[in-house]
Amino acid sequence: MSKEFNNNPHRRLNILTGEWILVSPHRNKRPWQGKTEKQAVTDRPQYDLACYLCPTNERMGGENNPDYKKPYSFVNDFSALLNDVKDEKYENGLLYAESESGICKVVCFSPDHSVTLPLMSISAITDVISLWQKEYKELGSMKGINHVQIFENKGDVMGCSNPHPHGQVWAQKNIPLEVAKKIDRLKDYWEKNQKSILEDYVQQELKLDERIILENEHFVALVPYWAVWPYETMILPKRKIAHIGLLTEKEKVSYAEILKGMTIKYDNLFKTSFPYSAGIHQAPTDGEEHPEWHFHMSFYPPLLRSATVKKFMVGYEMFANPQRDITAEQAAETLASLPSIHYSKT
Amino acid sequence: MSKEFNNNPHRRLNILTGEWILVSPHRNKRPWQGKTEKQAVTDRPQYDLACYLCPTNERMGGENNPDYKKPYSFVNDFSALLNDVKDEKYENGLLYAESESGICKVVCFSPDHSVTLPLMSISAITDVISLWQKEYKELGSMKGINHVQIFENKGDVMGCSNPHPHGQVWAQKNIPLEVAKKIDRLKDYWEKNQKSILEDYVQQELKLDERIILENEHFVALVPYWAVWPYETMILPKRKIAHIGLLTEKEKVSYAEILKGMTIKYDNLFKTSFPYSAGIHQAPTDGEEHPEWHFHMSFYPPLLRSATVKKFMVGYEMFANPQRDITAEQAAETLASLPSIHYSKT
Ligand SMILES: O=P(O)(O)O[C@H]1O[C@H](CO)[C@@H](O)[C@H](O)[C@H]1O
Ligand SMILES: O=P(O)(O)O[C@H]1O[C@H](CO)[C@@H](O)[C@H](O)[C@H]1O
Repeated sequence: MSKEFNNNPHRRLNILTGEWILVSPHRNKRPWQGKTEKQAVTDRPQYDLACYLCPTNERMGGENNPDYKKPYSFVNDFSALLNDVKDEKYENGLLYAESESGICKVVCFSPDHSVTLPLMSISAITDVISLWQKEYKELGSMKGINHVQIFENKGDVMGCSNPHPHGQVWAQKNIPLEVAKKIDRLKDYWEKNQKSILEDYVQQELKLDERIILENEHFVALVPYWAVWPYETMILPKRKIAHIGLLTEKEKVSYAEILKGMTIKYDNLFKTSFPYSAGIHQAPTDGEEHPEWHFHMSFYPPLLRSATVKKFMVGYEMFANPQRDITAEQAAETLASLPSIHYSKT
Repeated sequence: MSKEFNNNPHRRLNILTGEWILVSPHRNKRPWQGKTEKQAVTDRPQYDLACYLCPTNERMGGENNPDYKKPYSFVNDFSALLNDVKDEKYENGLLYAESESGICKVVCFSPDHSVTLPLMSISAITDVISLWQKEYKELGSMKGINHVQIFENKGDVMGCSNPHPHGQVWAQKNIPLEVAKKIDRLKDYWEKNQKSILEDYVQQELKLDERIILENEHFVALVPYWAVWPYETMILPKRKIAHIGLLTEKEKVSYAEILKGMTIKYDNLFKTSFPYSAGIHQAPTDGEEHPEWHFHMSFYPPLLRSATVKKFMVGYEMFANPQRDITAEQAAETLASLPSIHYSKT
């Protein structure tokens, strides 16, 4: 990597979307008099009577949660997607619309209100992955569901409305925008090389060893070369696995291990319950073969300088181009060097 | 517009980018226990000794501002883009990067620390537009500057680090992502119809009169059919004008009037100094003819329910698809019905 680039503005290509991002390494030096966030509250009770996600409590929709002991999922009481929408198209001059249908579910990671992924045991995280697998398979095999998006919004700064450890699944008819971008690129590479682009990418990253944070037998956690968010990371399997439904039992445990390891690093970065949105991109469930797919999980965390100062993706970023203030290498080095034991346990 | 769509999830096409957005009209009914923002402080002194944008004060870079009386611009002391970057390309396996060069400027709208656009006079706003014109022309005619992005981040919730009324200009070599998307679509339509797509669109909107907020002789303010942010709006000239440098003196005043009118509506919506990022998209400055271009200014405001509850573009929106919780028509109706006098003056 040219040394010039490390200190000067440059653009990097996201090979999965074909989009360039602007890197301004020198810019994080500027003083900050802007907005600061409240630090996340970390000592919560194990059970909260007022929480609509805790076992046995009443939900917003009026139903009661069972006394669940393992990860538990249900249809969102305020789903953005509905399953019984009539198929319709609307076209009037320059206005184009069409109906969309789907299902939104909530996935509680644990009955324990007080925990988060980095504080859960490997076997408890493995149970979460098992439930994700079940949702991906069940929703994905429903008629008219061509895509299943699993994600987590963690922390109120990421729009999470309840601190009970949980994520969501939105399954729908149409392939969403961000996934559609990737499909084209993955297909292209597969057709030319009969290999997944991420299989080759992960090998190159392991060889270079400049952006790797964690590695185990089956998985790697790294800061992608084209990361946009300050401490954006990606967890991906070394071998090409199209979706989480195809993980072996051993791989599932490896996945849980690296998930725990990565989220511990995150919490240790600013000694806070680290906020992020995480999402798993995997093969569409449109009934077609997807030899090009290589699933991966990305983390988009907003914090930049401390537990209370985040990066704002606003004016320039909204109207022009994604932009970051530190390099991927700087972020990776910082994350890699952090202890692997959660700060609250030392 | 099919009545079904008004209450059911559907997708709408952004004709300027080719991207679909998900609309979930019923979803705003859900209760909100999530994050609330601090209300913006609105009574500021006209001059603040601690403000590095006020006249005569010392800036972060060590220089002193002149005792300016009209809108004033200067090179950002912490520019994300630098102008003397060597032209370089880097390619290594699946890693692609290249140098980027440009200039970042700050535009103070007024010497008065206490005002915002909706509180300024038409003639003072016209002066701001004149400075934008000057920046667009001067920066745009510099060698190696092919795009000039004018924008404003207003409010600390939009990452604005100083409440002094100001915006920014980032000018650069490469055409940024969001603009590149639009260029393709504008060109396409121009080649097929010898008219700008926005000329036809604005006529259709005026005829339908479902999303119009304000109109004067030369300009229209509306909620675009494909709006993403809850109260997103667009100000556009009725005739095809490629960039603000081409405005007649009368049009410039019309533009100032609609800018003031629109930002007053915004402040009146939740009786607060309404936060947003605003940006002007106009013809690239690459020296080529751009008959397809029709400049427009968009506002992306984060607030959804009140002065303190915003829409979070997080998990699903980051990993899958832009999504909104009210329809463009609902937003337009609300905005159109608001008084045209600023709430602080009544
Ligand atoms: O340049 P400022 O005001 O310091 O910074 C603000 O605007 C920039 C351009 O949209 C963003 O990159 C920053 O994240 C934001 O905080
Ligand atoms: O579904 P929730 O948790 O109420 O809402 C949160 O996640 C959704 C999906 O990313 C977003 O659309 C909302 O803006 C956010 O507040």
